[in-house]
Amino acid sequence: MESASSTPARPVGRGRKAQAAVRAATLAELLDRGYAELTVEGVAQRAGVHKTTVYRRWKTRESLVVDALAEHFTTDIPTPDTGALESDLRALAQALVQSMTDPVGKAVQTAMLSDAGRLPEVAEARRRVFADRIRRAEPVVVRAVERGELPAETDPAELFGTLAAPVYFHLLISADPAVEDTAERAVRITLAAARAGALTRSRHSAADDGEA
Amino acid sequence: MESASSTPARPVGRGRKAQAAVRAATLAELLDRGYAELTVEGVAQRAGVHKTTVYRRWKTRESLVVDALAEHFTTDIPTPDTGALESDLRALAQALVQSMTDPVGKAVQTAMLSDAGRLPEVAEARRRVFADRIRRAEPVVVRAVERGELPAETDPAELFGTLAAPVYFHLLISADPAVEDTAERAVRITLAAARAGALTRSRHSAADDGEA
Repeated sequence: MESASSTPARPVGRGRKAQAAVRAATLAELLDRGYAELTVEGVAQRAGVHKTTVYRRWKTRESLVVDALAEHFTTDIPTPDTGALESDLRALAQALVQSMTDPVGKAVQTAMLSDAGRLPEVAEARRRVFADRIRRAEPVVVRAVERGELPAETDPAELFGTLAAPVYFHLLISADPAVEDTAERAVRITLAAARAGALTRSRHSAADDGEA
Repeated sequence: MESASSTPARPVGRGRKAQAAVRAATLAELLDRGYAELTVEGVAQRAGVHKTTVYRRWKTRESLVVDALAEHFTTDIPTPDTGALESDLRALAQALVQSMTDPVGKAVQTAMLSDAGRLPEVAEARRRVFADRIRRAEPVVVRAVERGELPAETDPAELFGTLAAPVYFHLLISADPAVEDTAERAVRITLAAARAGALTRSRHSAADDGEA
């Protein structure tokens, strides 16, 4: 669990390295101050660059935050390949819980759901994050179908959504203390629904008959 | 879908009637202005009462908002009794979607998840709302078990959480445009998981073996 607070304060040049430093500083500021208190000045100072360097690449505070968030999320959930659906789902769910409960992840979730969450850019970043996670979860479904563990028509987006929903619901909404293992619970529900054929593409477009 | 904006502006006395007017005015202000801009003055004016009448019952702006929210949620999801589990779950899921997508519900959700959502009172109100909904969903599970539709050990809290999670996830987090019917999707997933015995009390406390 690497803390974004370890961002170097030494001056860095323009280009990729400066951009990476600015993104890391943005996450660190988000973590320390929250979205409402985050300023471009503060980010620039933390990253060791001039404010104009930040503004050259990011026109607004919002676009800077969105970009830093999107970048953070492209690497948080790896694609597991453990040889079995259940352990693959477990790895995905555990990575999601980990990503949502480490200090950076917490700050990021809070920013995405706070008043900032209603900005079109933030909503768009959120959609991009999920599209990207679904893309990375796709091989898990393909391999499970090949192994005969799942119906051929299983939809990766449905599967990932079903796995993510109880994790988000528990960590962000209900906070039910009776739930002992968020990831394991999500795996259990998703496995049962997927094996029963409730997460197939055909169901997706024929939702109204309601039979599971 | 009754709008809270129809709150009467005429003066009302102290007591229950004034309290109801203040709560309705709080929801209306939340709807029109959002949580950040909500003031006790504005609420009092809208309710047609003096500011001190508000402060006599609610010590802080936060406690006023929390109380109005909790009150709103005690009536939003009725207990269905349609004679079958699937249609009961559909009624519950549709009521939840309805409650979350009408204007008052939207304003309420936004307030609960905004920066205000981190206040201990708001977190506590959220827990109370879910505990109350679970309590109201309990007869659905009891009757389904009696009809032989579900394993005897099915846990009402697990069932309601499994039904609510995809609804919250879709409406508040992923906003995936490919999902055509939020309620129907939640029903499908919950039915499959419940019938497979993935939502039983014994699973709840023996989560670690992970077999669904």
